[in-house]
Amino acid sequence: MSPYTAVELIRAKRDGKKLDDAAIQWLISAYTHQEIADEQMAAMAMAVFFRGLDDRELATWTQAMIASGSRMDFSSLTRPTVDKHSTGGVGDKITLPLAPLLAACGAAVPQLSGRGLGHTGGTLDKLESIPGWRAELSTADLLARLDDVGAVICAAGSGLAPADMRLYALRDVTGTVESIPLIASSIMSKKIAEGADGLVLDVKVGSGAFMKNLADAHTLATRMVALGTAAGVRTVALLTDMNTPLGCTVGNALEVREAVEVLAGGGPRDVVELTVTLANEMASLAGLDVDPAQVLASGQAMDVWRRMIRAQGGDPDAPLPTAQFTEEITAPTSGVVTAMDAMAIGTASWRLGAGRARQNDTVQAAAGIELLARPGERIDAAMPLLRLHTDTPAAFDAARAALHDAITIGEQPPTARPLILDRIE
Amino acid sequence: MSPYTAVELIRAKRDGKKLDDAAIQWLISAYTHQEIADEQMAAMAMAVFFRGLDDRELATWTQAMIASGSRMDFSSLTRPTVDKHSTGGVGDKITLPLAPLLAACGAAVPQLSGRGLGHTGGTLDKLESIPGWRAELSTADLLARLDDVGAVICAAGSGLAPADMRLYALRDVTGTVESIPLIASSIMSKKIAEGADGLVLDVKVGSGAFMKNLADAHTLATRMVALGTAAGVRTVALLTDMNTPLGCTVGNALEVREAVEVLAGGGPRDVVELTVTLANEMASLAGLDVDPAQVLASGQAMDVWRRMIRAQGGDPDAPLPTAQFTEEITAPTSGVVTAMDAMAIGTASWRLGAGRARQNDTVQAAAGIELLARPGERIDAAMPLLRLHTDTPAAFDAARAALHDAITIGEQPPTARPLILDRIE
Repeated sequence: MSPYTAVELIRAKRDGKKLDDAAIQWLISAYTHQEIADEQMAAMAMAVFFRGLDDRELATWTQAMIASGSRMDFSSLTRPTVDKHSTGGVGDKITLPLAPLLAACGAAVPQLSGRGLGHTGGTLDKLESIPGWRAELSTADLLARLDDVGAVICAAGSGLAPADMRLYALRDVTGTVESIPLIASSIMSKKIAEGADGLVLDVKVGSGAFMKNLADAHTLATRMVALGTAAGVRTVALLTDMNTPLGCTVGNALEVREAVEVLAGGGPRDVVELTVTLANEMASLAGLDVDPAQVLASGQAMDVWRRMIRAQGGDPDAPLPTAQFTEEITAPTSGVVTAMDAMAIGTASWRLGAGRARQNDTVQAAAGIELLARPGERIDAAMPLLRLHTDTPAAFDAARAALHDAITIGEQPPTARPLILDRIE
Repeated sequence: MSPYTAVELIRAKRDGKKLDDAAIQWLISAYTHQEIADEQMAAMAMAVFFRGLDDRELATWTQAMIASGSRMDFSSLTRPTVDKHSTGGVGDKITLPLAPLLAACGAAVPQLSGRGLGHTGGTLDKLESIPGWRAELSTADLLARLDDVGAVICAAGSGLAPADMRLYALRDVTGTVESIPLIASSIMSKKIAEGADGLVLDVKVGSGAFMKNLADAHTLATRMVALGTAAGVRTVALLTDMNTPLGCTVGNALEVREAVEVLAGGGPRDVVELTVTLANEMASLAGLDVDPAQVLASGQAMDVWRRMIRAQGGDPDAPLPTAQFTEEITAPTSGVVTAMDAMAIGTASWRLGAGRARQNDTVQAAAGIELLARPGERIDAAMPLLRLHTDTPAAFDAARAALHDAITIGEQPPTARPLILDRIE
């Protein structure tokens, strides 16, 4: 017999009391083993939304979620392992050039990734637009590729933090996603279980991000860094701007194309800046004495990319799929572009077919949006600002509706907002 | 397709927004028809715990719970109907003398009652200690008995407010019972669906009650009176003390015996006072020009009691069951009894077998506690204060443990607290 009951623990948290370590361990374990009903965990999650978890409670909660499953073991590798996690943004294709760049610098980068839901795209969805590429990899293959190629982007196995898998699905349908301690424990339980020695967190802030304001993003980043550090993972977080999409493309194949441009030494300035900044952090955590900008310029990262894509069945030379239909959105007046709203553009791309509303929906590889202008650019009336791509032309109307008010045109250039807003370690 | 989703409504309430009427009606109807999952309603209930419901939301919520089922129709009766509800206390046997007393005054009293859970006893459990008495009655029999005898105490059918039945069971396991709007809508949806013209609410306040303090009890009573009045039911609430058990007995057969004493013109002063006070309120709501105290003294209420018990198969002359084992608790010192804690005594009676922990547990008819002294009484050391009754002597230890600190003995008599604390109409 357990000394705890779910109702007593829910009432205690509801009334602002602290849960002791053994109670939290029992709660997470019993929920994983379906000894606590979904309705009880939903009430607990809502109580946590209102009452929070203090640092000790959060650390124990996260450790209990890790203990609900297995942990990866990279001790057999000769390279130092380093991982990166983004909290999700619009046009965020950074993992694609970043993982091969770090591998070219000498690290092993195990990027266990997910598929997208809603207005932000998933890294696996993007790579699946490459003909032949497959996301699933056995643990043995993962280890072999890490030692050999140095970078692997693949689907996370279901053995890592299964408590989080259940709890995340529950939070999604019960209005309890937006709780900083629950977000922190969800991300960090998976990342710690993934077992890398170092971890860089890219915490997005702005309209297209989960965290709309700097204060919440700062709190989330601080709590995640503390959790990683306490678990023996060297962890650094950057807060980065997500009011405007990253780069000039949003959508799966469109983003792969842009990532390849970056690996080839070109690409949009903001994508290059964020890739190199994160690479510097990761190289430093991995103890590598190299200059990632130089490695990128040398073309070695492109070599790793091609090997990485081939290792999972993809053809890096095959043409990427293109959409059957395109339409352009033009400027209603002349002036200066003062804002291009990330949330609106992400939602429009989703409506065009690039994203999914439910976990089992399929996505269109070629759907998405090209940004033909950027904030700060001076434009003339009737100039094209966005190009919409889809295989389902009926989607243009919904996309145009989502883009209403997405672009602001003014008289004066906007004050430039830095891409990197803060750094927490 | 509904214009609402459960997640959107949960998030709106969670973030302090008001739910519009159509949204609340959809929520309750969809939950009754199992189109909203228990985990979603649990999260909503916890959000309501923290954010509350305003008067309009509460009225709509309550009406939607009534609309989830059928309503009783007493329009065929010649007598005015009047009902009473107690929020539950220890030793609260008031319904037993009160219903026949009002019938003797000329009203029809349909007391659709429940069984007890935890430390408070249920009216049906008490009556079931009478040999032969049965709680179940068809609607046709209920109407016939109301016209004929005037008072019926029977089990509430499952057709009244089925949404409340589901929601109450959910709240019980999710730590969301203690929400004033959810309590108010639960009680009032059933009482309004029961269809009486008038309703008196006995809102208990104190250690043995759900509402521990006067402010909460006042809020609950005010909201319930507003709900009843808005639904066309003349409603009055009394706030009454529940720091000390009512009367000198706690337990099923023991309480029936005390109720019969009251009907016979005797009984403890507090039970008589509360019975007559509530009867005055009910007679007034029913528009009856009688003096309930005189009717009680005349023996007519006893006549109705005997007919009421016989009409449901009971034998009012049969001896009530007595417990196989009794033990006494004696005074450790001389002095004045300053407090006899209702919660502790209720819990001890439950442990002795008079109450149930789960809905399907059985209860002992004869188990319970006699109070051999009352607050304010001067006692000598070693005098008996309580007599414990049970058929399962192993229960004495748990009962004694629950009674630790239940009785306080001091030097000075306590300041008398009135039984009737407030009145709201």
